Amino acid sequence: MTAATAVAEHASPTYAPARVDGIAPALPVVGADTLVPLVDGRRVPYANLDVAASAPALEAVADHVARVLPLYASVHRGAGYLSQVSTALYEQARRTIGAFVGARDDDGVIVTRNTTDALNLLAGCLPADPATGQPGRVLVLDIEHHANLLPWQRTTDTTVLTGGPSVAATLAALRDELRESGPYALVATTGASNVTGESLPVAAVVEAAHAAGARVVLDGAQLVPHRPFSLAETGVDYVAYSGHKTYAPYGAGALVGRRDWLDAGTPYLAGGGAVKRVRVTETAWHDGPARHEAGSPNVIGAVALAAAADALRAVDPAELALHEAALRDRLVVGLGNLDRVQVVRCWDDAVDPVGVVTFTVTGYDPGLVAAYLSAEHGIGVRDGRFCAHPLLGRLGFDAGAVRASVGVGTPGSDVERLIAAVAALVEHGPQAQYDVVDGLWVVVDDPRPVPEGLGLDGLLATAALGDPTGCTPTVP
Amino acid sequence: MTAATAVAEHASPTYAPARVDGIAPALPVVGADTLVPLVDGRRVPYANLDVAASAPALEAVADHVARVLPLYASVHRGAGYLSQVSTALYEQARRTIGAFVGARDDDGVIVTRNTTDALNLLAGCLPADPATGQPGRVLVLDIEHHANLLPWQRTTDTTVLTGGPSVAATLAALRDELRESGPYALVATTGASNVTGESLPVAAVVEAAHAAGARVVLDGAQLVPHRPFSLAETGVDYVAYSGHKTYAPYGAGALVGRRDWLDAGTPYLAGGGAVKRVRVTETAWHDGPARHEAGSPNVIGAVALAAAADALRAVDPAELALHEAALRDRLVVGLGNLDRVQVVRCWDDAVDPVGVVTFTVTGYDPGLVAAYLSAEHGIGVRDGRFCAHPLLGRLGFDAGAVRASVGVGTPGSDVERLIAAVAALVEHGPQAQYDVVDGLWVVVDDPRPVPEGLGLDGLLATAALGDPTGCTPTVP
Repeated sequence: MTAATAVAEHASPTYAPARVDGIAPALPVVGADTLVPLVDGRRVPYANLDVAASAPALEAVADHVARVLPLYASVHRGAGYLSQVSTALYEQARRTIGAFVGARDDDGVIVTRNTTDALNLLAGCLPADPATGQPGRVLVLDIEHHANLLPWQRTTDTTVLTGGPSVAATLAALRDELRESGPYALVATTGASNVTGESLPVAAVVEAAHAAGARVVLDGAQLVPHRPFSLAETGVDYVAYSGHKTYAPYGAGALVGRRDWLDAGTPYLAGGGAVKRVRVTETAWHDGPARHEAGSPNVIGAVALAAAADALRAVDPAELALHEAALRDRLVVGLGNLDRVQVVRCWDDAVDPVGVVTFTVTGYDPGLVAAYLSAEHGIGVRDGRFCAHPLLGRLGFDAGAVRASVGVGTPGSDVERLIAAVAALVEHGPQAQYDVVDGLWVVVDDPRPVPEGLGLDGLLATAALGDPTGCTPTVP
Repeated sequence: MTAATAVAEHASPTYAPARVDGIAPALPVVGADTLVPLVDGRRVPYANLDVAASAPALEAVADHVARVLPLYASVHRGAGYLSQVSTALYEQARRTIGAFVGARDDDGVIVTRNTTDALNLLAGCLPADPATGQPGRVLVLDIEHHANLLPWQRTTDTTVLTGGPSVAATLAALRDELRESGPYALVATTGASNVTGESLPVAAVVEAAHAAGARVVLDGAQLVPHRPFSLAETGVDYVAYSGHKTYAPYGAGALVGRRDWLDAGTPYLAGGGAVKRVRVTETAWHDGPARHEAGSPNVIGAVALAAAADALRAVDPAELALHEAALRDRLVVGLGNLDRVQVVRCWDDAVDPVGVVTFTVTGYDPGLVAAYLSAEHGIGVRDGRFCAHPLLGRLGFDAGAVRASVGVGTPGSDVERLIAAVAALVEHGPQAQYDVVDGLWVVVDDPRPVPEGLGLDGLLATAALGDPTGCTPTVP
């Protein structure tokens, strides 16, 4: 991989797609009109370009939660009418969560807390290699974020394959590895990189894996909020996704896929609900989703996730695709056309990337860029290495980068504000004074007030200098 | 333990505390005025007497969530203003969640999904015995529910001690075991039984455990929603509790306690946020709460749990205690005075039990009683063995029982409705026709409609015949 391939393919200033100011959100989100303070005293609508990290709730989701909350009661073993209603709502949500990713009739649908949780669960269910009795082997690319790296590395025999300079080269390397160094039990691959929005063609990965006797798990965290996806149609064996990235930030995500491994695997949590029978000396565990959902489930979270699925599926996929492609294209080109701005790509030949665009501004620490966009323009982006340290390292961005991400709730005007703000930075530099305190970028004597009525005694600075800690929380 | 001790101490009909119709809820809950249909066509307000399983949201909690939702954005590494606000809200919630249980300054506060999750997490952090290198030993009583049994049994060397016929005898047995069969690393004990609301005096347990060099973890699931509790004041080392039982059903719970084990233990989930640095071949893990909170946290769940803590702490504890004691006392006596009704107790000498009252009606399967209370009276209770199979077995209730539970949101009129409904059952039997289908009690040709507008195609029956499966979900 040369540095050149990390530059946007459209970096030529002669290519300039139309401005996208006029593009409205595809779906309304809660808080879209929230005003935030700037260092100059103005208040502007918040431009949330960090939806790849966590997306706001769809209005349809918040409305549905408000409708269900008065009906909320204990599930599964409460006999009251509202317990029966809540149990029906929870199991209906489970079906919707599965149908949203094209679950086959006999697939299991387990409600988890997020993608990380889902992939940890699956890692614990990986069958042992019958020949060796050792944990089954997992093959994963170095483009993955930590949720799709660390769970495998911790509990299984995992090979991390270095991606090639193109999709074609990477697929070839994957096929070679599967053929020559197998057998693998599982190939874990992302549906869309959380750094570049790119991915390998899933059909090709499935074909290669299945031909080598391996199953495929798709990390759907960044794909499912953006594109229709179907287990049944693709042949993918498992998919994991997160509610907080799918416009349902109520603490639930999902793992969906082949039941056999799930039914035979170690119960994820030990506790009530997961067992048929407990004596002092002996425990009999359930199969089915109950096996892995010990304790009372997050009913509201599951119902919210299902409501998001319903709302996303109610929009014409072509309309969603057009909306996002227009925003992404404008971002890539608008940023790429600016002096000193470099857009990060894994592969030039990736097809249909999702709305995640990562860039650097030469001469400015990514944390400073992020702090500037927030303080002077009311724009929220992410800085750092995006829980994808190996990839950023390989692409030559060990010092991190800045990521802007768009989705169904993003208006085109937010994209234009970002491009204009980065252009102003390149041309004039930041106007406020910034300093690094405890490794974090802050505005010197930050005049921005804290929202009232919430008991907050201050904001928490979160833009880190040179990203020493990657995707890490910065507070104790 | 004789059968006699399982009968309510107040079973004499000469003791009859005043009716409690006039007692209002101590705090308003969402859905308190929800009407539910009966089999005779009437609609009545739902009497939710299953709050020990899952409690409705406090109105203050739902209101706070609605206020925060428009401010929700990615936490920890988003640099936008709302990311800074959300991060501050999350970390403020963490402090509140800790303060609610009297965390010491250096205690860790980890946001989990529920008590089961919290205790599984702690089980994974139990240090090895330095002498043997084997997992540290855990001592637990057989009165515990599965969340406080199974996590220890699965990952550690666990002794399940059979409780004695009295608190005094049980404490003596505990002291003997600790002295004669130690060393134990940890004593896991409940703050209040989910079957009887009773508990051992925590000061005595702490004294005995600490004298023997063991730490104490309190299962606070049933205690914390009912009573002020303080780690600092009691000397308890860890406490776990659940949002869905603490009037904040948004998918978050907590583990609070000594940091050393948590900082040294295996990270609970592998994934982003839990690590300082990831290379392809090596991973460095954080300490502090981040170590165990990989993936994006449930910000809304944590904020909701903190809001519940704030609301509960804003009420005079004496007022809460009076409210609950009046309701519980009336339940125990009112039910115990009925022919054929037996109230389940662990110990006659338990002090200040919480509002959880379990009973049986001779001649009626507990599942039928629960189905009857729902169908003919609009009352929600729980039937079965309450995820506490060993205890129910020892007390002679292997066929299960019926549990009514009250809390801050319960009006006295719900208690009177239950007593009257059970009295009517004893006197006249059920009026509707019931049958067992697939092991579950259902109303024959149940005329009750499903709530409209939610897309439900039916209710899910949940009252099981003879409780073959305990606390198990009854749906696939």
